[in-house]
Amino acid sequence: MSEATTAAPILLRPIGVVHTPHKTRDDVPRGLGARHDTEGTFEIFPEFAPGLADIEGFSHLYVLWIFDRAESFELVGKNPTDGLVHGVFATRSPKRPNPLALTVVELLGRDGDTLRVRGLDMLDGSPIVDLKPYLSNVAPEKLRRGWLDAAEAAKQAGA
Amino acid sequence: MSEATTAAPILLRPIGVVHTPHKTRDDVPRGLGARHDTEGTFEIFPEFAPGLADIEGFSHLYVLWIFDRAESFELVGKNPTDGLVHGVFATRSPKRPNPLALTVVELLGRDGDTLRVRGLDMLDGSPIVDLKPYLSNVAPEKLRRGWLDAAEAAKQAGA
Repeated sequence: MSEATTAAPILLRPIGVVHTPHKTRDDVPRGLGARHDTEGTFEIFPEFAPGLADIEGFSHLYVLWIFDRAESFELVGKNPTDGLVHGVFATRSPKRPNPLALTVVELLGRDGDTLRVRGLDMLDGSPIVDLKPYLSNVAPEKLRRGWLDAAEAAKQAGA
Repeated sequence: MSEATTAAPILLRPIGVVHTPHKTRDDVPRGLGARHDTEGTFEIFPEFAPGLADIEGFSHLYVLWIFDRAESFELVGKNPTDGLVHGVFATRSPKRPNPLALTVVELLGRDGDTLRVRGLDMLDGSPIVDLKPYLSNVAPEKLRRGWLDAAEAAKQAGA
């Protein structure tokens, strides 16, 4: 049973905003083998910029941002990658109960309150709610990727 | 300049709750070389459980959860790992502008609406706001870890 505290809603406020060349969904590479080499910037709002101290030493960051143009969610839905139906928590679909997005980006440099980054898959103007250092990998021999591995195998067999 | 849409607050609601043996902060291993082998469960609330379909195929998951016992935040603060001051976005401190936590866990199995997981660093009762499949690693030769690498090197030199 859930307790009262765990059911309380949580209020987030943006700490910054993404600037990318991706103005619409169709601008963002998607699906199997999609490469995200897009460069852009994270503008961190002045009141939060002191929190960037020492971030330059990290090559990669986790960025938590908001799917602010997702209008609804679906718990199960057809995925464009393989055309099959999966649960939302087994996908990176933007149609999630909480519109939270997570991307690993490469940090190219910092100019004051602005970070130059590579590997962007978000739309221009997306709100940023947190940044964290990327610290470690899962051992490759321990990684299984469920329906995505199957979709990639099917694609290679058919190629 | 930020636009009105990016400054709008975002409301999250828990999709589930963590059950772990960690009842207090002192129960959670922290600092350099801390191992997080703790096992526990994620109880997903019935209304969101259909979103778990096909999740069993993934060996590892990203869990987004809430530091619900963090009472304030500090943009810069002394880190227990090295005793030095760093910006909050260069650390995994719970005292963040948005109390969002991110953990990579190993998925051991699923029993209905409950996931059995390993690698827990959260307190018992923490609210879960999202689950996502862990899909890929950063190439190890490209990974730099800033002040944490320096802290580990200093520890090894002194050991």
